[in-house]
Amino acid sequence: MKRYGQVIKVRPGSEGKYKALHKDPWPEVNAMIKACNIQNYSIYMRDGYLYAYFEYVGDDYEADMAKMAADPVTQKWWAECMPCQEKVGSAGPDEWWADMEEVYHLD
Amino acid sequence: MKRYGQVIKVRPGSEGKYKALHKDPWPEVNAMIKACNIQNYSIYMRDGYLYAYFEYVGDDYEADMAKMAADPVTQKWWAECMPCQEKVGSAGPDEWWADMEEVYHLD
Repeated sequence: MKRYGQVIKVRPGSEGKYKALHKDPWPEVNAMIKACNIQNYSIYMRDGYLYAYFEYVGDDYEADMAKMAADPVTQKWWAECMPCQEKVGSAGPDEWWADMEEVYHLD
Repeated sequence: MKRYGQVIKVRPGSEGKYKALHKDPWPEVNAMIKACNIQNYSIYMRDGYLYAYFEYVGDDYEADMAKMAADPVTQKWWAECMPCQEKVGSAGPDEWWADMEEVYHLD
Protein backbone atom coordinates (compact mmCIF):
# COMPACT_ATOMS: atom_id res chain seq x y z
CA MET A 1 0.00 0.00 0.00
CA LYS A 2 1.25 3.46 -0.86
CA ARG A 3 -0.09 6.64 0.75
CA TYR A 4 -0.55 9.85 -1.23
CA GLY A 5 -0.93 13.43 -0.05
CA GLN A 6 -1.83 16.04 -2.66
CA VAL A 7 -2.69 19.74 -2.77
CA ILE A 8 -4.53 22.08 -5.12
CA LYS A 9 -6.17 25.49 -4.76
CA VAL A 10 -9.91 26.05 -4.69
CA ARG A 11 -10.86 28.89 -7.03
CA PRO A 12 -12.09 31.89 -5.00
CA GLY A 13 -15.87 31.82 -4.97
CA SER A 14 -16.08 28.11 -5.81
CA GLU A 15 -15.75 26.81 -2.26
CA GLY A 16 -19.50 26.28 -1.91
CA LYS A 17 -19.93 24.50 -5.21
CA TYR A 18 -16.95 22.23 -4.54
CA LYS A 19 -18.28 21.32 -1.11
CA ALA A 20 -21.78 20.67 -2.44
CA LEU A 21 -20.45 18.37 -5.17
CA HIS A 22 -18.41 16.38 -2.67
CA LYS A 23 -21.11 16.22 -0.05
CA ASP A 24 -23.16 14.23 -2.54
CA PRO A 25 -20.65 12.57 -4.88
CA TRP A 26 -21.89 10.55 -7.83
CA PRO A 27 -22.00 6.83 -6.96
CA GLU A 28 -20.39 5.89 -10.29
CA VAL A 29 -17.44 8.16 -9.52
CA ASN A 30 -16.92 6.65 -6.08
CA ALA A 31 -17.20 3.15 -7.58
CA MET A 32 -14.58 3.97 -10.22
CA ILE A 33 -12.20 5.34 -7.57
CA LYS A 34 -12.48 2.07 -5.67
CA ALA A 35 -12.13 0.05 -8.91
CA CYS A 36 -8.87 1.91 -9.44
CA ASN A 37 -7.55 0.59 -6.12
CA ILE A 38 -7.88 3.77 -4.10
CA GLN A 39 -9.25 3.62 -0.56
CA ASN A 40 -9.50 5.71 2.61
CA TYR A 41 -9.71 8.86 0.51
CA SER A 42 -10.33 12.18 2.26
CA ILE A 43 -10.29 15.76 1.00
CA TYR A 44 -9.91 18.71 3.37
CA MET A 45 -10.36 22.43 2.73
CA ARG A 46 -8.87 25.45 4.47
CA ASP A 47 -7.73 28.94 3.48
CA GLY A 48 -8.30 28.45 -0.23
CA TYR A 49 -6.54 25.12 -0.49
CA LEU A 50 -7.72 21.52 -0.89
CA TYR A 51 -5.70 18.67 0.57
CA ALA A 52 -6.22 15.05 -0.42
CA TYR A 53 -5.09 11.93 1.41
CA PHE A 54 -5.65 8.45 -0.01
CA GLU A 55 -4.19 4.98 0.00
CA TYR A 56 -3.36 3.11 -3.21
CA VAL A 57 -3.59 -0.65 -2.89
CA GLY A 58 -3.01 -1.73 -6.50
CA ASP A 59 0.26 -2.54 -8.24
CA ASP A 60 0.16 -0.18 -11.26
CA TYR A 61 -0.77 3.37 -10.24
CA GLU A 62 -0.21 4.88 -13.69
CA ALA A 63 -2.45 2.27 -15.34
CA ASP A 64 -5.19 2.76 -12.74
CA MET A 65 -5.04 6.55 -13.15
CA ALA A 66 -5.33 6.10 -16.93
CA LYS A 67 -8.32 3.81 -16.41
CA MET A 68 -9.99 6.44 -14.23
CA ALA A 69 -9.26 9.22 -16.72
CA ALA A 70 -10.85 7.14 -19.53
CA ASP A 71 -14.13 6.66 -17.66
CA PRO A 72 -16.89 8.81 -19.22
CA VAL A 73 -18.74 9.45 -15.94
CA THR A 74 -15.52 10.44 -14.22
CA GLN A 75 -14.81 12.82 -17.09
CA LYS A 76 -18.22 14.47 -16.55
CA TRP A 77 -17.52 14.70 -12.82
CA TRP A 78 -14.15 16.30 -13.44
CA ALA A 79 -15.83 18.77 -15.81
CA GLU A 80 -17.85 19.91 -12.78
CA CYS A 81 -14.95 19.90 -10.33
CA MET A 82 -12.02 21.26 -12.30
CA PRO A 83 -13.46 24.76 -12.85
CA CYS A 84 -13.58 24.95 -9.03
CA GLN A 85 -9.84 24.33 -8.80
CA GLU A 86 -6.53 25.96 -9.73
CA LYS A 87 -3.12 24.31 -9.73
CA VAL A 88 -0.65 25.44 -7.11
CA GLY A 89 2.11 27.62 -8.54
CA SER A 90 4.76 24.96 -8.04
CA ALA A 91 2.84 22.22 -9.87
CA GLY A 92 4.48 20.70 -12.92
CA PRO A 93 3.00 21.01 -16.42
CA ASP A 94 1.50 17.52 -16.21
CA GLU A 95 0.21 17.86 -12.65
CA TRP A 96 -3.27 18.91 -11.58
CA TRP A 97 -3.35 17.89 -7.95
CA ALA A 98 0.30 18.27 -6.86
CA ASP A 99 1.95 15.46 -4.89
CA MET A 100 3.30 16.40 -1.49
CA GLU A 101 6.33 14.83 0.17
CA GLU A 102 5.67 12.42 3.04
CA VAL A 103 8.00 13.44 5.87
CA TYR A 104 6.53 11.29 8.66
CA HIS A 105 4.37 8.24 9.08
CA LEU A 106 3.25 6.23 12.10
CA ASP A 107 1.01 3.21 11.60
CA MET B 1 -13.03 6.63 14.53
CA LYS B 2 -12.60 10.29 13.62
CA ARG B 3 -10.25 11.52 10.92
CA TYR B 4 -8.30 14.75 11.30
CA GLY B 5 -6.58 16.93 8.71
CA GLN B 6 -4.43 19.78 9.98
CA VAL B 7 -2.11 22.41 8.52
CA ILE B 8 0.77 24.54 9.77
CA LYS B 9 3.62 26.41 8.10
CA VAL B 10 7.23 25.27 8.17
CA ARG B 11 9.51 28.17 9.08
CA PRO B 12 11.65 29.15 6.07
CA GLY B 13 15.05 27.52 6.47
CA SER B 14 13.78 24.85 8.89
CA GLU B 15 12.58 22.37 6.27
CA GLY B 16 15.71 20.25 6.57
CA LYS B 17 15.71 20.12 10.36
CA TYR B 18 12.01 19.25 10.46
CA LYS B 19 12.48 16.46 7.95
CA ALA B 20 15.50 15.08 9.78
CA LEU B 21 13.63 15.03 13.08
CA HIS B 22 10.70 13.18 11.54
CA LYS B 23 12.80 10.76 9.56
CA ASP B 24 14.10 9.43 12.87
CA PRO B 25 11.37 10.19 15.42
CA TRP B 26 11.95 9.39 19.08
CA PRO B 27 10.42 6.01 19.97
CA GLU B 28 8.91 7.40 23.18
CA VAL B 29 7.12 10.08 21.18
CA ASN B 30 5.67 7.57 18.75
CA ALA B 31 4.62 5.36 21.65
CA MET B 32 2.86 8.26 23.37
CA ILE B 33 1.01 9.16 20.16
CA LYS B 34 -0.31 5.60 19.95
CA ALA B 35 -1.11 5.59 23.68
CA CYS B 36 -3.24 8.67 22.99
CA ASN B 37 -5.33 6.68 20.50
CA ILE B 38 -3.92 8.17 17.30
CA GLN B 39 -3.10 5.91 14.39
CA ASN B 40 -2.32 6.04 10.67
CA TYR B 41 -0.61 9.40 11.14
CA SER B 42 1.14 11.00 8.18
CA ILE B 43 2.73 14.42 7.71
CA TYR B 44 3.37 15.88 4.26
CA MET B 45 5.39 18.92 3.21
CA ARG B 46 5.11 21.17 0.17
CA ASP B 47 5.64 24.85 -0.62
CA GLY B 48 6.32 25.87 2.95
CA TYR B 49 3.38 24.07 4.50
CA LEU B 50 3.00 20.91 6.57
CA TYR B 51 -0.18 18.85 6.31
CA ALA B 52 -1.10 16.17 8.85
CA TYR B 53 -3.61 13.36 8.51
CA PHE B 54 -4.41 11.00 11.37
CA GLU B 55 -7.16 8.84 12.75
CA TYR B 56 -8.35 9.13 16.35
CA VAL B 57 -9.75 5.91 17.77
CA GLY B 58 -10.36 6.90 21.39
CA ASP B 59 -13.46 8.39 22.96
CA ASP B 60 -12.09 11.56 24.59
CA TYR B 61 -9.88 13.54 22.22
CA GLU B 62 -9.40 16.50 24.57
CA ALA B 63 -8.30 14.25 27.41
CA ASP B 64 -5.89 12.35 25.17
CA MET B 65 -4.40 15.59 23.85
CA ALA B 66 -3.94 16.80 27.43
CA LYS B 67 -2.24 13.49 28.29
CA MET B 68 0.14 13.93 25.36
CA ALA B 69 0.89 17.53 26.28
CA ALA B 70 1.75 16.47 29.86
CA ASP B 71 4.33 13.89 28.75
CA PRO B 72 7.89 15.16 29.47
CA VAL B 73 9.48 13.42 26.47
CA THR B 74 6.81 14.79 24.14
CA GLN B 75 7.46 18.24 25.59
CA LYS B 76 11.16 17.89 24.73
CA TRP B 77 10.24 16.70 21.22
CA TRP B 78 7.92 19.66 20.73
CA ALA B 79 10.70 21.98 21.92
CA GLU B 80 12.68 20.69 18.92
CA CYS B 81 9.83 20.81 16.43
CA MET B 82 7.93 23.97 17.29
CA PRO B 83 10.72 26.41 16.37
CA CYS B 84 10.54 24.82 12.89
CA GLN B 85 6.87 25.76 12.59
CA GLU B 86 4.65 28.84 12.34
CA LYS B 87 0.88 28.94 12.73
CA VAL B 88 -1.15 29.72 9.65
CA GLY B 89 -2.59 33.22 9.64
CA SER B 90 -6.14 31.98 10.12
CA ALA B 91 -5.35 29.83 13.16
CA GLY B 92 -7.16 30.66 16.36
CA PRO B 93 -5.34 31.85 19.51
CA ASP B 94 -5.44 28.36 21.03
CA GLU B 95 -4.51 26.49 17.84
CA TRP B 96 -1.02 25.41 16.78
CA TRP B 97 -1.75 22.94 14.02
CA ALA B 98 -5.00 24.28 12.50
CA ASP B 99 -7.84 21.87 11.83
CA MET B 100 -9.03 21.64 8.23
CA GLU B 101 -12.60 20.93 7.16
CA GLU B 102 -13.29 17.47 5.74
CA VAL B 103 -15.28 17.99 2.54
CA TYR B 104 -15.12 14.43 1.15
CA HIS B 105 -14.46 10.92 2.35
CA LEU B 106 -14.61 7.53 0.67
CA ASP B 107 -13.78 4.43 2.69
